[in-house]
Amino acid sequence: VDPSARAARERFDALAKPTGSLGRLEALGARLAAIAGSCPPPRPAPATVAVFAADHGVHAAGVTAWPQEITSTMVGVMASGRASVQALAAAAQAEVVVVDVGVAHRTAPVDGVLDRSIRRGTRDLSVEPAMTLAEVSRALDVGAEVADELIAGGARCLVTGEMGIGNTTPASALVAAYCGRSAAEVTGRGAGADDETLARKVGAIESGLSRHDPGDDPLVVLASLGGLEIAAMAGFVAAAASQRVPVVIDGVIADAALLAAERLLPGVRHRVVAGHRSTEPAATIALDELGLEPVLDLDMRLGEGTGAVLALPLLDAAVRALTDVATIADVMGD
Amino acid sequence: VDPSARAARERFDALAKPTGSLGRLEALGARLAAIAGSCPPPRPAPATVAVFAADHGVHAAGVTAWPQEITSTMVGVMASGRASVQALAAAAQAEVVVVDVGVAHRTAPVDGVLDRSIRRGTRDLSVEPAMTLAEVSRALDVGAEVADELIAGGARCLVTGEMGIGNTTPASALVAAYCGRSAAEVTGRGAGADDETLARKVGAIESGLSRHDPGDDPLVVLASLGGLEIAAMAGFVAAAASQRVPVVIDGVIADAALLAAERLLPGVRHRVVAGHRSTEPAATIALDELGLEPVLDLDMRLGEGTGAVLALPLLDAAVRALTDVATIADVMGD
Repeated sequence: VDPSARAARERFDALAKPTGSLGRLEALGARLAAIAGSCPPPRPAPATVAVFAADHGVHAAGVTAWPQEITSTMVGVMASGRASVQALAAAAQAEVVVVDVGVAHRTAPVDGVLDRSIRRGTRDLSVEPAMTLAEVSRALDVGAEVADELIAGGARCLVTGEMGIGNTTPASALVAAYCGRSAAEVTGRGAGADDETLARKVGAIESGLSRHDPGDDPLVVLASLGGLEIAAMAGFVAAAASQRVPVVIDGVIADAALLAAERLLPGVRHRVVAGHRSTEPAATIALDELGLEPVLDLDMRLGEGTGAVLALPLLDAAVRALTDVATIADVMGD
Repeated sequence: VDPSARAARERFDALAKPTGSLGRLEALGARLAAIAGSCPPPRPAPATVAVFAADHGVHAAGVTAWPQEITSTMVGVMASGRASVQALAAAAQAEVVVVDVGVAHRTAPVDGVLDRSIRRGTRDLSVEPAMTLAEVSRALDVGAEVADELIAGGARCLVTGEMGIGNTTPASALVAAYCGRSAAEVTGRGAGADDETLARKVGAIESGLSRHDPGDDPLVVLASLGGLEIAAMAGFVAAAASQRVPVVIDGVIADAALLAAERLLPGVRHRVVAGHRSTEPAATIALDELGLEPVLDLDMRLGEGTGAVLALPLLDAAVRALTDVATIADVMGD
């Protein structure tokens, strides 16, 4: 057991309350102590959600009913501050930054959106590798750079967010490849796929998976089956982990990115908090593989960072319990 | 379906996101609209936790290993601002007020604690009715007065809290009586009872239940098996409900109080939000009977209001989603 986590457990046991009575909030406090390498850990504030946006060539395979243009439309809604993630971030007093790492249909730079575009969407993963190794490496670097910039700017907690029409397909494909599962096991309805769309989605993932064996290099798999925003999120998570700043992981897209990061850099999973459990089957498969129990389980499947950002006040509460509550010794000494 | 709840559902469906993708947050928003009788509902802020403190005559039956004096000790800790509920309330930006409705061992009025003491603890429910009808009525009134005062002072959301050594025993007894369950089914280990203590607890509850039949008047049952803080919480919930101010319900003690309020004033259950699921078996029995799905499930069993207060940011997020997010029509009109 990590010594800071043990110190947090001992502190919780010493507080003026029944032993263990804060339940999973105590585990969360211990995890934050382990991430920081100190007990008590610093408060996870201010917090920033980074929303990485990109498009997917596999859209051409009919894996979603939503037009690909919706990605750039939603980036515009985010730029105006009126997306779901921003309403929920406001409730948790978090900032939101939007990063274009590969939107296909953008017309011009959008005010309020960081332009780090690597290419205008990936290739169709059901036909060929979605990215080259150079592209996936660049996406990892961009994600890491954004994390480093946000931390340099004062952020003490990061949250993964994303926007990309069709991106449950690459996310599910990565979970299948990294966890040794079939396309049918990992594939869900995403943003509302009907039976025919779902069948095309399973078929596209099967096609992509057929290029790989279990022993393949994790970076090759990420390039082949992933997405630019997924790779950027993997780099983002890894960079924050190396700085011991907690990252709250959102739903299935972020779970896939974390799985990629863990395969590239084993141990990263110990430096994050799973914010919520998406209803997508690949989310639970990935979380189980990573040994993570999510804080919230609210049947959400929106993405953008909406599930993870809701968990932020619980992280703050866990830290405040470690710092602000009287111990039994304090009370008996009165 | 309530028309304000329906309006909230329609609003969620109109937002620029996949239908239903905010999951249980949408149900929470609809519930808050129904409680307020308007859509969008007002933001649930500022919020105040009222911690009702009292002692229990059944302590003499050996139902807990904790000395009864701990109730007044913890009231002192709360007066100093260093109890668990206050640390967690700070993370949710809520205020905490402490109300003495029946602490046994207090020595003098404590600064920062409202003195509404009805008597210095109840009688032993395993031997005789815990309260007279006059006492239980007074406790209901005190709870209602506190709710009315807090709302008059500007609170737009209330949270139930409590402190009372031994109070899982009366709470479990009430759940058994109101739901037609046996003592063994409802009784849990509370703040850490060992096997012998648990057996005494079951025996005390069986004794109390033996005075009653299923058709008994709910006020008589509350007086016989309840506690001063439990009755005060029931009055508190009922008064807030009548003013259409949402009340977030904490763990098993609050669930029992809500059940009492519902039996006294059917329909109150539609005007509250279940904040979390306590690990105590009686909590889940009561929530199922009331048809309530709690927002959080974090294996907590501390009381004080700690579980419920953690749900507050999610209520705020649900309302902000209804007020601050662009609709599909907004986006398409751009």
